[in-house]
Amino acid sequence: MAKNSTSRIILGVDPGTIITGYGLIKCYGKKMELIACGSIQLGKSKTAHADRLKRLFNRLKGLMDEFAPDEMAIEAPFYGKNPQSMLKLGRAQGVAMAAALGRDMPVFEYAPRKVKMAVTGKGAASKEQVAAMLRNILKFEESPHYLDATDGLAVAVCHFFQGNPAHSSTQHKDWNAFIKANPGRIK
Amino acid sequence: MAKNSTSRIILGVDPGTIITGYGLIKCYGKKMELIACGSIQLGKSKTAHADRLKRLFNRLKGLMDEFAPDEMAIEAPFYGKNPQSMLKLGRAQGVAMAAALGRDMPVFEYAPRKVKMAVTGKGAASKEQVAAMLRNILKFEESPHYLDATDGLAVAVCHFFQGNPAHSSTQHKDWNAFIKANPGRIK
Repeated sequence: MAKNSTSRIILGVDPGTIITGYGLIKCYGKKMELIACGSIQLGKSKTAHADRLKRLFNRLKGLMDEFAPDEMAIEAPFYGKNPQSMLKLGRAQGVAMAAALGRDMPVFEYAPRKVKMAVTGKGAASKEQVAAMLRNILKFEESPHYLDATDGLAVAVCHFFQGNPAHSSTQHKDWNAFIKANPGRIK
Repeated sequence: MAKNSTSRIILGVDPGTIITGYGLIKCYGKKMELIACGSIQLGKSKTAHADRLKRLFNRLKGLMDEFAPDEMAIEAPFYGKNPQSMLKLGRAQGVAMAAALGRDMPVFEYAPRKVKMAVTGKGAASKEQVAAMLRNILKFEESPHYLDATDGLAVAVCHFFQGNPAHSSTQHKDWNAFIKANPGRIK
């Protein structure tokens, strides 16, 4: 991936224990464009947990080798009720962070609510609302196969907005304004 | 670290969110010897969590560079009550596992009870009992500064015993037999 001196590439990751979404955006000044987004299937629950983590680690390393991102933004839920689920989620987060730390890439964490707020102006937005807003911001028509992919993309966009506060409202102040401006987009 | 063709080096790690213990043993046939053990302080709780994980990752990578272990054994508690603590513990476990996965080193997980059982013959053994038994098995007199270091060492020894079932009872069948044989060692 060619980068000019003023551009940077952000890798957004939403680690999960079954599926991990990712998105890559290229930013220059106040503009950004979509490079890639997708999801990493970690295998069925019968697959040994260490093997699933290895798959996650290797796929993220592969993305880093291919696109050479400058920064990683990670969606990191901190609250949950089930201790065992949180342990597994923590492991996935740790593996994702380590993939970045291994090449001295800075890692930034964002709570899910913060990501939704940054992208849609609404902390409790649905996955579909986040996806619709991302399609509008990044001008892509194709819907990713998995909404998880847009979750990864959303945290990359959230991180971009953090570094560009003046731009963080996007074209639309919030979700309601977006709906008003795009009456036909959401069913 | 020079290795001959029949020896292997096991890195044992007991990841924690504040302190991580590690131990390295060299195994040849049914024998093993202590190479190193110690603990990695992850910094005070005020230190940013990502920085603490980075410290853990880099220290483990440093140990791997220096000693070139063939396998990693990790003490991995799976049960806990506090979801947030489990998330943090999961992150530390994930980072430790990723350090090994990054160089295709096999990772083996052991529950704390399993480790204690393997080393002392008693699943509910105290840290002090585990440390005393390790000193006996590995013939070292110096007490590591932190008992956490022996926790890391214990999981390495546990893994060695797994691969050598005939030897897993060590010289002493269990903790009670050890006490009988070493009346003056434990106060």
